[in-house]
Amino acid sequence: MSTFQRRAHEILEAAPEGDRVSRALDYFIIALILLNTAALILSTVRPIYAMAPALFQYLELVSVSIFVVEYLLRIWACTVEPRYAHPVYGRLRFALSPLLLIDLLAIVPFFLPLLGLEDLRFLRAVRLLARAARLGRYFRGIRTLGTVISSRGYELLTVVLVLAVMLVLASALMYFAEHQAQPDAFASIPEAMWWSVITLTTVGYGDVSPVTSLGKIMAGVIAIMGIGMFALPAGILGSGFLEEIQRRNRGPQVCPHCGGELED
Amino acid sequence: MSTFQRRAHEILEAAPEGDRVSRALDYFIIALILLNTAALILSTVRPIYAMAPALFQYLELVSVSIFVVEYLLRIWACTVEPRYAHPVYGRLRFALSPLLLIDLLAIVPFFLPLLGLEDLRFLRAVRLLARAARLGRYFRGIRTLGTVISSRGYELLTVVLVLAVMLVLASALMYFAEHQAQPDAFASIPEAMWWSVITLTTVGYGDVSPVTSLGKIMAGVIAIMGIGMFALPAGILGSGFLEEIQRRNRGPQVCPHCGGELED
Amino acid sequence: MSTFQRRAHEILEAAPEGDRVSRALDYFIIALILLNTAALILSTVRPIYAMAPALFQYLELVSVSIFVVEYLLRIWACTVEPRYAHPVYGRLRFALSPLLLIDLLAIVPFFLPLLGLEDLRFLRAVRLLARAARLGRYFRGIRTLGTVISSRGYELLTVVLVLAVMLVLASALMYFAEHQAQPDAFASIPEAMWWSVITLTTVGYGDVSPVTSLGKIMAGVIAIMGIGMFALPAGILGSGFLEEIQRRNRGPQVCPHCGGELED
Amino acid sequence: MSTFQRRAHEILEAAPEGDRVSRALDYFIIALILLNTAALILSTVRPIYAMAPALFQYLELVSVSIFVVEYLLRIWACTVEPRYAHPVYGRLRFALSPLLLIDLLAIVPFFLPLLGLEDLRFLRAVRLLARAARLGRYFRGIRTLGTVISSRGYELLTVVLVLAVMLVLASALMYFAEHQAQPDAFASIPEAMWWSVITLTTVGYGDVSPVTSLGKIMAGVIAIMGIGMFALPAGILGSGFLEEIQRRNRGPQVCPHCGGELED
Repeated sequence: MSTFQRRAHEILEAAPEGDRVSRALDYFIIALILLNTAALILSTVRPIYAMAPALFQYLELVSVSIFVVEYLLRIWACTVEPRYAHPVYGRLRFALSPLLLIDLLAIVPFFLPLLGLEDLRFLRAVRLLARAARLGRYFRGIRTLGTVISSRGYELLTVVLVLAVMLVLASALMYFAEHQAQPDAFASIPEAMWWSVITLTTVGYGDVSPVTSLGKIMAGVIAIMGIGMFALPAGILGSGFLEEIQRRNRGPQVCPHCGGELED
Repeated sequence: MSTFQRRAHEILEAAPEGDRVSRALDYFIIALILLNTAALILSTVRPIYAMAPALFQYLELVSVSIFVVEYLLRIWACTVEPRYAHPVYGRLRFALSPLLLIDLLAIVPFFLPLLGLEDLRFLRAVRLLARAARLGRYFRGIRTLGTVISSRGYELLTVVLVLAVMLVLASALMYFAEHQAQPDAFASIPEAMWWSVITLTTVGYGDVSPVTSLGKIMAGVIAIMGIGMFALPAGILGSGFLEEIQRRNRGPQVCPHCGGELED
Repeated sequence: MSTFQRRAHEILEAAPEGDRVSRALDYFIIALILLNTAALILSTVRPIYAMAPALFQYLELVSVSIFVVEYLLRIWACTVEPRYAHPVYGRLRFALSPLLLIDLLAIVPFFLPLLGLEDLRFLRAVRLLARAARLGRYFRGIRTLGTVISSRGYELLTVVLVLAVMLVLASALMYFAEHQAQPDAFASIPEAMWWSVITLTTVGYGDVSPVTSLGKIMAGVIAIMGIGMFALPAGILGSGFLEEIQRRNRGPQVCPHCGGELED
Repeated sequence: MSTFQRRAHEILEAAPEGDRVSRALDYFIIALILLNTAALILSTVRPIYAMAPALFQYLELVSVSIFVVEYLLRIWACTVEPRYAHPVYGRLRFALSPLLLIDLLAIVPFFLPLLGLEDLRFLRAVRLLARAARLGRYFRGIRTLGTVISSRGYELLTVVLVLAVMLVLASALMYFAEHQAQPDAFASIPEAMWWSVITLTTVGYGDVSPVTSLGKIMAGVIAIMGIGMFALPAGILGSGFLEEIQRRNRGPQVCPHCGGELED
């Protein structure tokens, strides 16, 4: 029995070099997730869904069945690893690890409607997010995003806190300036935040913009001083992500002449 | 008496390690400011305010009372510090320090309407700004913004001066190109500045845009050459802010040659 | 014969120092491509095209004839180079090299209509792209773009993969939030991608924007966290391009310890 | 006579330390230019101009008179400098130096209408530009912009050349995709360039945007790959400008422990 378990564990985890069966299963699961995600996307295009609704439902049924079997096999085989060795508590701790919770989230939304829960839109969104996160198990590029978010956690948190204060201040100032002229668009400070976010990220749809002179002057000052601050979280994520890719892409740099390591 | 004053001073200033009473007061004041700010924001949402207008007024009354007591206690206790030791002039100089002026600004707007001054909108904006600034006393992240603005003062001032010149030039050029075709949107050079700010920050609401060929060509050249300049103040603030966060997050840097500590 | 071939080869390739004939031909071809491109652009301006339609067709006929002769001469003369020495296979391999394929693409669209293929719009686009790429043979600045794209291939590919995942997720979330309120703009996940691209690049036309509260909150979070990621491919291209220009503009860099030349 | 000339020359050029008369004249000229520019801006605001049209004309007359006297005095006194010593050719070469040409451009537009030339709009734009450039004689911040543009000339030129090619390609592709669906907005390739500039700078007014599926897909790819390239000229100017400010603001950096210069 232990041999079966060990082999199952090897096959289910990301393939070691040269293990063809394990690698084949990885590719199969990746293909299934991609197919499934494509189906979920295409099923929202009415003419395509109308062509073969049964096909979309059948594909979902089949892939969820496979995901369930895979999930149960993982739980069954995890006791091979010393830290999850206990047949009950080990398996429980394994089931509560982040990767397994994501696996569970990719399965559960399928069964909730059977229990009477019917908000399909929300369940579909969760399903899609969970399956995209599952891809991270296999693609380093996607997983890197998670690494970057947690390694820059302190910076992101501080910046987001300050942005929240700036957002409230900008919204309050614009509310006080524009409320009388545009009682709908600037109905309250929380509603004025929509203007603040769209302006400070420089998206600028134009659905809400100041019309009074005071509002325009304040909007100009807020935009010039604030857009760099709102570019920070995205910039931290982006530059951290790029650094990670480049670090993996090359070894440490050395001077080709003296062989000494260069600090980059 | 002096012992009371010393203890009051200790409790009111940011808590030293291990002083539980001082720390508790800090948390209480922070909670009060946050609650107060949330109330100010929510009171602009008509249905929420309509539910309990008395509650919002009562909350404001209570918190201003606490802020007044806190403010007076600070003034009373400040003579403990050697540089504010003189009972009259010391207290006066202390009352004129930036932090205490901000504390005052957070209180005064409540009393002005009693004196017949009635522009509530403006007073509310001042109140909100002053209370957000007060939070900076307790949160390093927010205070850092102030540090960055003053440490980059020379760069910011030079850039803002040049931006003002560019803004005038861009507005004048577009006014001369578009005034005849759009006498409303480009009614004068000052009004054309709205176009310049919204274009050069790349917000681009679309409420004002050139329609003549000359105007479009000039707008394109202005946009390509100018948007980087208008990103500078926000970029200076943003990068300075990020540097500050990272400097605090890691240890001091050393010179690679002699091992001595470097200031940056 | 071999002397003619050698001379033809010398003249056709980018001019060596001091070879006046070769340089003159280079300038002639560059002028022809620029003239041709200008003609293609101007021919889309109806009043200009209407003035002299025959002129535009004649110019195209003449330049394609010259390009054909140039192309055939290159094929004929390439056997001078040792690696393309074989009269049949050498020429075939030469004809399949990227530069020659681009040359072919600049010619072929002229002949396809004669074969009954009639989608002129698509052919004109191909012709224009191929001729712009041909200019890269002569202008380092344009060729640099190609160098940068291939040298940063790994980064670009990883980033584009992650962007695709983010694009799908953002579109799906907004589809679930806005589909009921705006069944046209957010008709399906693929159609919601238009919103995602235009928002995450901060272009923000305003033709599609969320109207529900949930949609606005999600759009704000997506914009703040995502715009930096979508700025990455363009930023990688841009910074790589700038580095290339600057590297060429200054001398090679040396290791500060041993004085040897460094590659970067 | 020579003493008068020497003194006039000293007073007219930027003030040396401690020369009070020269410094006073500098301040007077700066104030006059600022006043004049403010008047030009305000004169476009109809209600303000209507209040006192004579005042604006009188101010212009007085300041042009002063500028003319200043200009003639500079020409008369320049022979003090050895390189402009020749009474005729020296003065001519001095009059053709960039700074003097700018001084001339700030004067000439006033006299052209007297000669029958009447395009006041264009003349006013020239006058404004020339006077803003004159300010650069006195403010380092503004003059720095000129220094940066010429020191980064090679990069700017290469980038602008490549942008021109990208602009043509993007416009052509969108023209071919959108011309049939929007024959007005995408009437020709030159007119499609308006879309390209506004999209690639991420301004995104929304007055022109693709409506076909092909157009939207191409616009998305163009935006993601191209916006970084179009941010380059502005970024080069901006970062160069900031470097210049910071270089002037601090001396060379040294390690505070060993006194060795650090490379920055």
